[in-house]
Parts: sequence; structure tokens; C-alpha cells
Amino acid sequence: MSQSVKTVTVIGAGVIGASWSAAFAAAGCNVRLNDVREGFAAAVHDDLRAALADITADVDGAFARITYHGALADALQGADLVQENGPERPDFKQDLFAEIERMVGPDTILISSSSGIPPEVIGKKMVDPTRVLIGHPFNPPHLVPLVEICAVPEVRADLVSRAMDFYSACGKVPVRLNKPVPGFVGNRLQVAVLREAINLVEMGVIDVAGADKIMLNSLGIRWAAVGPLLAGQLGAGNGGIVAMIDKIMASLIDGMGLPPISPETVKLVGEQASAAYPLDRLKEFAEVRDQRQKAVMAVQKDHPLPTAGS
Amino acid sequence: MSQSVKTVTVIGAGVIGASWSAAFAAAGCNVRLNDVREGFAAAVHDDLRAALADITADVDGAFARITYHGALADALQGADLVQENGPERPDFKQDLFAEIERMVGPDTILISSSSGIPPEVIGKKMVDPTRVLIGHPFNPPHLVPLVEICAVPEVRADLVSRAMDFYSACGKVPVRLNKPVPGFVGNRLQVAVLREAINLVEMGVIDVAGADKIMLNSLGIRWAAVGPLLAGQLGAGNGGIVAMIDKIMASLIDGMGLPPISPETVKLVGEQASAAYPLDRLKEFAEVRDQRQKAVMAVQKDHPLPTAGS
Repeated sequence: MSQSVKTVTVIGAGVIGASWSAAFAAAGCNVRLNDVREGFAAAVHDDLRAALADITADVDGAFARITYHGALADALQGADLVQENGPERPDFKQDLFAEIERMVGPDTILISSSSGIPPEVIGKKMVDPTRVLIGHPFNPPHLVPLVEICAVPEVRADLVSRAMDFYSACGKVPVRLNKPVPGFVGNRLQVAVLREAINLVEMGVIDVAGADKIMLNSLGIRWAAVGPLLAGQLGAGNGGIVAMIDKIMASLIDGMGLPPISPETVKLVGEQASAAYPLDRLKEFAEVRDQRQKAVMAVQKDHPLPTAGS
Repeated sequence: MSQSVKTVTVIGAGVIGASWSAAFAAAGCNVRLNDVREGFAAAVHDDLRAALADITADVDGAFARITYHGALADALQGADLVQENGPERPDFKQDLFAEIERMVGPDTILISSSSGIPPEVIGKKMVDPTRVLIGHPFNPPHLVPLVEICAVPEVRADLVSRAMDFYSACGKVPVRLNKPVPGFVGNRLQVAVLREAINLVEMGVIDVAGADKIMLNSLGIRWAAVGPLLAGQLGAGNGGIVAMIDKIMASLIDGMGLPPISPETVKLVGEQASAAYPLDRLKEFAEVRDQRQKAVMAVQKDHPLPTAGS
């Protein structure tokens, strides 16, 4: 369990809030779950227990650490950290975070799960608007490790580091973005792929099921093993990703309606890639890539997808 | 083993040609490997055996089915299928396929591994230019299942179906594209993700290693489990991918500089998605998604990537 975060207030008992509550309770935190809906404790009961069963052997013990609070002031009692999952409306979140700020001390970590509203917008009505963090999960948060973290540059550093430590202690993988950008990183990468897949469906090159089949049997395996940049660093011989940009990307991006990559950016990407994945050690990385790829293919075989006809 | 393909000629003993040769020999085919380089049999020896060790328990037996032929006419003796892996130059492939055509009968299946040159360009100097197929693999072909298949509309149907059967018999997953398009499907999806990842690095939102970490801990797991369209169908409640396009994509694509999606295309994508992944059966699909996601995360834990400092 996190050293500095023992009690977490989760605001909103929908799909995301319930999944977060399970993750935090399974990690040993006391979870104070808040929702304005009458009878939400009964409504969320089955989802909480199903999520807990996914991630802990002690479902009863973890479930007992979750309590239910219809009043916000009550839910915030003793909170070391707040994870907010309300509607994605700036005005709603602005009022809510201003209200939360009045009820907690200066060291309580205030986090929104928002997938699109930047922290400076959410903090607008607060006395200290710099203290709001984004902790953006991927669905379902109790299973998928990534949490995208961002804040304004003026944020108190200890709030960010305590949040990162907390998520890590919960078995999550927090990744800090240097600055907020609409959609953060994950959803932008997702939209980039979906937009092109939809483009290919529109052009009649492939249908929806075929596009998925292609991803599942090539890039999906690859990106579960190494991520797109390391895949690029490994994918064009000794020249690394710079050679890959030159060989595969340059001729395609123009025809796909994407902007060209400047020589300065190619250089920057090449330098960062070679710092993280040294060119003289690519063989080591390729070996783990292929171990992972083989194991991922075995997972796909072991768990067949339903078919529409079945 | 494929019923109609017993003997395969592989042209080009580079990385891709060697990997293909291993895949075909492991599946029981006689492989006639051709290259113009002096002494290529010795040069390719270790790569062939390493690839075979990845995919078959009988390395010696499979290795013995591979023979080496410096002369093209010799390599093509008795070939039921030709898999060409020469340089990615239209003029080179045009001359080569015209030469091959003069040396084989009308039922030999002629396939290029080209990742970018359309079949009608490759066939330009042939008597029957419609007979060239693309069989585009992902690196390394002996491990990654996908083979993208395309041809001109006038192609003899039996050549395509025999090629598809052959790849399936070799344990590959052939997917036919309705028409050729530069980069086919897989590389276009790859370029879409890489272009946006590089954009985020250029904007200073994240560095190369961080972008990979984000993919590995979210979308990589997801796309190894379900593919991007099924993920979308499952990602927005009962509304399926149409709701997902509306909720997540519409607000982002404009800011990302991508073209809007027309209402007709949204409808088409929704119809195809609901035919393949019926909305009243999403729970079944979500269960397999999560089984696969958990197992893929376990694979990542079991096979840690090297770190630059280690």
C-alpha cells in the first residue's frame, strides 16, 4: 500500500468509479465511495464484487474496505486522495473541485479521471487552481495498467510524486505527460488508428471485421510486445527508427494525407530512441520482442473470440 | 500441408526470404531457395535454423527440405508457388516476373512480398499481368501470422483461393484486401500511430520511451485482445462504435488535423460492426477481451524488456 495514501474518496459510482474503487480497495486502501444517486450502494454491489474477483483473492476483505456516502462532506472525511469520475462537463467539474477544495486540507491529492478536460480548466474556480491533477485511466481501470498523469507546470511537485507513488502501489503504471493536450496520448493514438481504419472501410479496401483481423494478427501482437517506437527501432536493420521513417513512413504519409516529418524531428526521435533502445543492443530487445510475440499468440489461441454466427 | 502446393520457390535469401523459407519448410513443403549472391546457402544457414527452431520440433527434417539454387530456371523446377522477396523497385520486379512467367506453367501461383508496389505495376511486362498476387507478410514472417493478400479484380479466382489455402495450411492468417492501396492496411495503421506518436514527441508532450510505455500498458494490450473496431464496439456502452465515434473521436479528430467522418460512413461502420459483433452479445465479447487482456499482461510480466541502463 502507498505510504502517504491510506484513505481514498472516489466520486461517482458509475462504471469507472466502481472499477477504481475495486482497484484501490484491493491494494489495501479505505475507499469512501460517493454518489448522488439514491441507493447507489446496492446498485454498484455486483460490479464491485465482480471487479474485485478479477484482481484479488480476498474479495470479502477488500469489499469491506469500501464504504458508501451520499454526502460529499462525509465522503471526504480523512481523504488523502480524491479520484473524481463525474460527468465530462467543464462547469460541473469546476464547481465540484471548488467545493472539494473547501472541505479538505492542502495536502489532499485532488485528481480527475477526465479524458478530455485539461487541469487548468477544471481548477478555474479554485483558490489554488494549480493543484488539480488528471489521472486518466483506460477502461476498465482495475485491469488496464496505464494511468496518464498531467498537471499545470506550476503544480506542487510533491502532489504529483505522491500520486505517482500511489498508483504504482496499486499495481498501476502511471506515466506523466509533460503537458496536457486534448485526448492526452492514449486516446490520440487510438483515434489515429481508428480514423485510418474507418478510412479504409470507407474506401472499400477492407471491412470492419477484416481490419480487426489484420490488427490482431500483426500490429496488435507487436504493440503488446514492444510499443510502436521500439518496434520501429527494431524494424529496419541497424539504422533504427530513422531508417524506418525513411523506408516505410516517408512514402506513405503524404498519400495518407498526413503532414511530413521535419528533419529536426526525425533527428530528435532518433536520439531519444537510441538513448532508450541503444542501437548496439537491438538483438537483446528483439529477443524479448519475439518471446512476447509468441506468448501473445498463444494467449489468442487459448481464448478464442466468439464469432457472429455461433 | 496444402493440397495443391507441395513445392515452393522462394526468391531472395535475405531476412524475409529466409524467414518465409523456414515457415514453408516447417509446414512440410519442399522449398527451392534462390539468390544471386555467391555462397548464399552458407550465409543463410544460421538464420534458417534459428527460425526453424522457433516454430518446429523437427529442425533437421525441415531444414533438409530446403535446397539452394543460384539459377532462377533451376529454382523454378516443379514450383507450385513462387514467393518473391527481391528489392522494392518496380523495374526490377517487372523484369523478374516477366522472366518467371516464361519458365512456369499457367497454374503456378506467383506472389510478391512487396510492401508497397501494387500488383498491376509488378505485372506490367507479363503476358498475363492479372496473375500476380501480393502476399505481404509482417516481420518476421515465420512468427507473425498475418499475410495481406491482394490482386487486380480480373485475377483468376482459383489462384487467390489456392494461395489463401496454402498460407492457412502453413499456420498463417491470410486476409484478402478488396483492392490494393499504397501500404495496404497494416502499414497504413502502423504509420497512422507512428505519425501521431512522433507528433506528440515533437510537441514535447511525451518522449519516445514514454509513448511506448503508454502503448504497452493500454492500447497494445487491448489491440492484441480485440482489434480497434471491436474495442470501439465494446467501449461505449450499448451504443457500440457509433456512440464511441460520437463520444471520443468527433471532438478529437478535428484538433488532430484529421478529416471528419461523414454520417454515411459512420452508418456503414456501425452496420458492419454490428453484423460482426452483435450489440446484444457484447458481454460475451467483453469477457474474452478481458481474459485475453489479463493473459497478455501476464506475458509482459513474464518477459521483461531490457532497460537502457542495465
